[in-house]
Amino acid sequence: MNVVYLSGGVGGARLAHGLARALPANALTLAVNTGDDLWHWGLRICPDLDTVMYTLADLAAVERGWGLHEETFAALSFVSRYGGETWFQLGDHDLGTHLMRSEWLRAGASLTDVTARLCRGLGVAHAIVPMSDSACETMIETAAGTRTFQRWLVQERAQLDATRVWFRRENEAAQTAASPSLLAALDAADLVVIGPSNPFVSIDPILGCTGVRERLARLPVIAVSPIVRGGAVKGPLARMLATLSQAEATPQAIADHYGALLNGFVGEVGDALPEATLPCHAAQTIMATRDDSLRLAREVLGFAERILAARA
Amino acid sequence: MNVVYLSGGVGGARLAHGLARALPANALTLAVNTGDDLWHWGLRICPDLDTVMYTLADLAAVERGWGLHEETFAALSFVSRYGGETWFQLGDHDLGTHLMRSEWLRAGASLTDVTARLCRGLGVAHAIVPMSDSACETMIETAAGTRTFQRWLVQERAQLDATRVWFRRENEAAQTAASPSLLAALDAADLVVIGPSNPFVSIDPILGCTGVRERLARLPVIAVSPIVRGGAVKGPLARMLATLSQAEATPQAIADHYGALLNGFVGEVGDALPEATLPCHAAQTIMATRDDSLRLAREVLGFAERILAARA
Repeated sequence: MNVVYLSGGVGGARLAHGLARALPANALTLAVNTGDDLWHWGLRICPDLDTVMYTLADLAAVERGWGLHEETFAALSFVSRYGGETWFQLGDHDLGTHLMRSEWLRAGASLTDVTARLCRGLGVAHAIVPMSDSACETMIETAAGTRTFQRWLVQERAQLDATRVWFRRENEAAQTAASPSLLAALDAADLVVIGPSNPFVSIDPILGCTGVRERLARLPVIAVSPIVRGGAVKGPLARMLATLSQAEATPQAIADHYGALLNGFVGEVGDALPEATLPCHAAQTIMATRDDSLRLAREVLGFAERILAARA
Repeated sequence: MNVVYLSGGVGGARLAHGLARALPANALTLAVNTGDDLWHWGLRICPDLDTVMYTLADLAAVERGWGLHEETFAALSFVSRYGGETWFQLGDHDLGTHLMRSEWLRAGASLTDVTARLCRGLGVAHAIVPMSDSACETMIETAAGTRTFQRWLVQERAQLDATRVWFRRENEAAQTAASPSLLAALDAADLVVIGPSNPFVSIDPILGCTGVRERLARLPVIAVSPIVRGGAVKGPLARMLATLSQAEATPQAIADHYGALLNGFVGEVGDALPEATLPCHAAQTIMATRDDSLRLAREVLGFAERILAARA
C-alpha cells in the first residue's frame, strides 16, 4: 500500500513519525505545507518541512514545539546585539540547515532537491517533499490588517482573529504549481492520509496546489482530527473555526471543511465523530510519545485497509 | 593629531587595539583590508574587518587567532552533516555578525555602513572602515594554479609558494575604488601608520585603491615591521618575501617594499633596522597582552610626533 501523508508542523509531524516507523521508505511520501516559509536573517526557513524532518530524525525539540533539541542560541544573541530581528528565533544547529538550504536554493536547486539532500544528511530515509517548489505565502487578514503567517502566529502570538486566509503566490493569477514529486507520489498512491494539522493554514495550502484536489478525488482519503475534546491540541485552530467557518471546534467541523474529499475520519475516543456522513474510527489521537505515534499510525492504516477492502 | 591606521588581520588588530586606547575616537580611523573577503555558506565574510572589530570590542579569540572567544560550533556540526564546506570554520556567535552583514548588504547597504552598524552593536567607538565598498579579491598564483586568498591560506595552509599576488576586481580594468570614508579620513589625517601586517596581502590591497597612494605621498607615513628576528610573527610572510621579492625576511625588505611612501620605521629592538634610508625607532613589537599593544602604540605615536616636529 503506497501512502501519501499531508502534513503541517508539530501535530502532523508526530503522526508522520509513527507512519515512518509503520511503513517502509518506499511506501510512504510525506507531503508538507510550505505556506509558512519565510526569508529571515537572509535565510530561507521552512518551518513545517524542518519540523517533519527533525521529528523523523529524532532530533526535534518535543517540549519547545519547534527546532532542535539540545539547541543553543549564540547567533541569536549576536543578532540581538546588532539590533536584528529576534521575534523568530533560530538555534545554532538549526542555522546549519537554513544556511545550506539557502545556499543551494540561491545556486538554483529546487526546494524538492534541497529537502532530499538535507534529509540524507540527517539519515531520514522516507521521502519528505514540499507541496511546491514555488513560493506560496499564507496570508492572514485581521481587523488590523494583513500579515504573513509567521508574523501573525509567532510575532503577534495570533492575538488578532483571522478574518480571512489567502495565499500570495509568485504569479498572483495562477494556482501554485505542485511539486512534481508530490504529483508523482499521488499518481502512485493507494491512500492519502491528512494529518491532524490545521486545515486552514497547513492542509489547504497543499490542497490548493495544481492537480492535488483532482488526484485526491480519485483516491481514498482519511483525515485525522486536529480537534480533540472541543479544542485544538495546539495553536489557533479553534478560534479560526469560529471566525472563518462560523463553526464550533468539533470533529464534524473538520469533516465539513474537507467535505467530499474524505472517505474516512479518525477522531478521539469519546468525541462525537461525523459518523452520519463518513466511516469513522475512534482512537487515542494525542501523541505524547513515539509509541503513541506508532500506535495511532497503525490504527489509521488498519482503518484504511478496511475502507479500501470495502471499496474493492 | 588625526591618525589613519592601515591594517590587516591579527598583527594589525593588536596594534589597532593599542592605538584605540591611546587616541580618542575622533582622532583615529582604522582602515582595513578587504581583499581576503569571501562568500561562504551564502554569507559575506570579512575576516580582517571582523578581527579588528572583535579585537577592539575585547571579544577576539586571542589564542586561536580568528573569531570570537568562548565560541561554539554547533552550526558547523550541522553543515558538516549536510556535506557542506567545513574548511573555513564559522562559530555560532560569529554567524550573527555574518548573517546581519549579508542581509544588510543584500538590502543594498554599503560595506562601510554595514561595518559601522556592526561596530555600534558591539560598542566599538572608533571608526573601522573597509578599504573599499567594492569587491577586490586577493588572488594567489602558485605552481599548481591560482587560488583565492582564503583557499590558499586556510584550506591549503599556504603549502604552495606564492609566485604572484594580484587582485580580481568587479571591473578588471579599473583600480578598486577606495571607500569614501577612507578617502575622507586620509584628507583629514596628520599621520598614517601602517600596521605590522603582511605587505603583500594585507596592505598592498589598501594601497591599490584609487587615491590612496597619492594621499599617502603627501602625508607622514610610519610602518611598523611585521618581521621580527628574521621571521614573520605569524603567517607566510617570510616565504612570500623570498618568492615575491627575492629578499630575506628583514626589516629592510619591508622598508624596501613600501619604498618612498615611508617617512619612518618602527622595528624590533635588536634587529637591524633600515636606518640608512629612514628615521627608525626600535621597540618591543611583539604584542602578547593588551598592555603590550598600548605601550607600542604610545611609542609609535611618540616617534611620529618627533618626525612631524622635524618636518614642521
